[in-house]
Amino acid sequence: MYEETLTKIREAKPLIHHLTNWVTIYDCAQMTRAVGALPVMAHSEKEVADMTNAASALVLNIGTLTEPFVESMKIAAKKANEKKIPVVLDIVGCGATPLRSEKTVEILKDVHVDIIKGNSAEIASLAGAEAEVRGVEAIGLKGDIKDIAKELAKKENAVVVVTGKVDIITDGERVENCTYGDKIMGKLVGTGCMATSVIGSFAAASKDYVKSSLEALSFYGKRAELAAEKATGPMDFKNKFMDEVAR
Amino acid sequence: MYEETLTKIREAKPLIHHLTNWVTIYDCAQMTRAVGALPVMAHSEKEVADMTNAASALVLNIGTLTEPFVESMKIAAKKANEKKIPVVLDIVGCGATPLRSEKTVEILKDVHVDIIKGNSAEIASLAGAEAEVRGVEAIGLKGDIKDIAKELAKKENAVVVVTGKVDIITDGERVENCTYGDKIMGKLVGTGCMATSVIGSFAAASKDYVKSSLEALSFYGKRAELAAEKATGPMDFKNKFMDEVAR
Amino acid sequence: MYEETLTKIREAKPLIHHLTNWVTIYDCAQMTRAVGALPVMAHSEKEVADMTNAASALVLNIGTLTEPFVESMKIAAKKANEKKIPVVLDIVGCGATPLRSEKTVEILKDVHVDIIKGNSAEIASLAGAEAEVRGVEAIGLKGDIKDIAKELAKKENAVVVVTGKVDIITDGERVENCTYGDKIMGKLVGTGCMATSVIGSFAAASKDYVKSSLEALSFYGKRAELAAEKATGPMDFKNKFMDEVAR
Repeated sequence: MYEETLTKIREAKPLIHHLTNWVTIYDCAQMTRAVGALPVMAHSEKEVADMTNAASALVLNIGTLTEPFVESMKIAAKKANEKKIPVVLDIVGCGATPLRSEKTVEILKDVHVDIIKGNSAEIASLAGAEAEVRGVEAIGLKGDIKDIAKELAKKENAVVVVTGKVDIITDGERVENCTYGDKIMGKLVGTGCMATSVIGSFAAASKDYVKSSLEALSFYGKRAELAAEKATGPMDFKNKFMDEVAR
Repeated sequence: MYEETLTKIREAKPLIHHLTNWVTIYDCAQMTRAVGALPVMAHSEKEVADMTNAASALVLNIGTLTEPFVESMKIAAKKANEKKIPVVLDIVGCGATPLRSEKTVEILKDVHVDIIKGNSAEIASLAGAEAEVRGVEAIGLKGDIKDIAKELAKKENAVVVVTGKVDIITDGERVENCTYGDKIMGKLVGTGCMATSVIGSFAAASKDYVKSSLEALSFYGKRAELAAEKATGPMDFKNKFMDEVAR
Repeated sequence: MYEETLTKIREAKPLIHHLTNWVTIYDCAQMTRAVGALPVMAHSEKEVADMTNAASALVLNIGTLTEPFVESMKIAAKKANEKKIPVVLDIVGCGATPLRSEKTVEILKDVHVDIIKGNSAEIASLAGAEAEVRGVEAIGLKGDIKDIAKELAKKENAVVVVTGKVDIITDGERVENCTYGDKIMGKLVGTGCMATSVIGSFAAASKDYVKSSLEALSFYGKRAELAAEKATGPMDFKNKFMDEVAR
């Protein structure tokens, strides 16, 4: 199901350039390495274009955004657009503060994002639907998230990935679901961010981002299930999960 | 002893807004999640007030402070004061450099801090007593730390928490001690910072900050003891400790 | 072989001031603590000189460099030069972008660095040899890395440490090799950065930086071998490795 793409990643070792948050930055790097790609984290406005120029995918994450950091994201994304490598944007906390909502909109206006990823409340908030985001957590929303995601995908000409108990992946026409994963993931900080790194790594190996995102989340969820079986708590799960992915 | 407050936290899932250091930021987030609260880390001056506005407690930590970062702390704390949610300040390395001492004093002058937390040398240094801080480590001090803490609490109209072999918690009148914990904690980076996140989470569920801090440290110390029994080294302890807390 | 120096470190508990990257900052701190030294991470231009003034070694790492961060590095290094404490520079990703190469050269021009450390492609790139760096990973190089390292050491009047399957340590005249370690280290983010913290800790306890670096890498590699024997994956290795070092 995802074996072929995984093999491609492990052979090509694509460089995945991240501009991510300071909370889960190590986990994103190690998860990328575990998948078989090469992570690099670089955010100075003086080098992001050069680093993206050497990369096969760009992963953006607004988890601890600042204005200069978003400027660096845009410089990197412009280079990625120019080079036609995939740009993945994780809209962490979109809807929780005006800054996060405004900057998400600004990024989507100024550069092309290939894959927009968030939890249901973040995606709904971006789409203009009513939703409650507490910090970086989805608390509730009104409306059907599948329809909301499809509309957003059409509007932004992007693949939209909504993570949750059932992940939804859509380009506005096709809709795929992914049901793999384990509830322990909800007790661990960073599972969303790490998923984005995996989505970025798979996107580097394929031009069909609906398929690559479905593969990424299926791989991620199935390895998580294997780790969860043996885990005695969230941190034990994290260690085992990363090592399952590395297999 | 702390079960009731713990249950309240796990039911209400209060948002704990952190402006913390870049070393232990993940551990603070995961420890907060393990307690049952929701962590969020946000430091842009453009969003800290909005994020604090949605939060139930604010945790500040000067471990890797810069001047702009301290400005963000003050903006957040002003909002917290306005909303009457607790502000916890971990004065990491206070006394080690003039910047840390000056900024600690500046924060305490400009905003109200409900709980001031540090090791004995940091607290003594802030109180004007003679103390040696090596980096972020307490090396020695002159005078009785209990008296020093009581005076500081009165002066700052705050609860003062001094961590060490025996933790001291005082509002200047009442003095509580906490003796739980294990010596392996001294071999692990981050145990002080994580304790502050737990103190913040418990403060979110109670208005009696002497009691809530005592509960927080008792809970923290007892779970640490359980983990230490089975731990084969500091990192193994860390994983097991976080998972004991998550139970 | 390294026991005497290790004992000295554990008795003196030297403060190792780091200006490092945001990816592996926790791991560098915990590795330093595990060795027996005291880590401190501080990067504000307003306190780096004061913190270095209290330190026994300075560790610089350009893994997530920005221009202001490099300015802080230079302020700290000037103080270290003045105090005659060792400065270790890990040139992460040198050669991957012009910024990294330029800033490495700039640091080496403006301050004295006692130990320059990188992988073969980073060192070759700095020395002006042909090399390919993908992100922070050595992909290939032309020429004999031993000769390149010797020339660089002479030119910079520094000890050069090249990490890889066989580590090379040279001051331009003496050349030492270290063959300890395990291939699982290549699957874990941060093994290079943590090695630099250990090199810094050992340099704090000795003035012969060829000998201290050889001891540091031998200690590091042998403990890694012990951990690797029992490890079930890269993250399990990381936890066990740090705990082996802490013994």
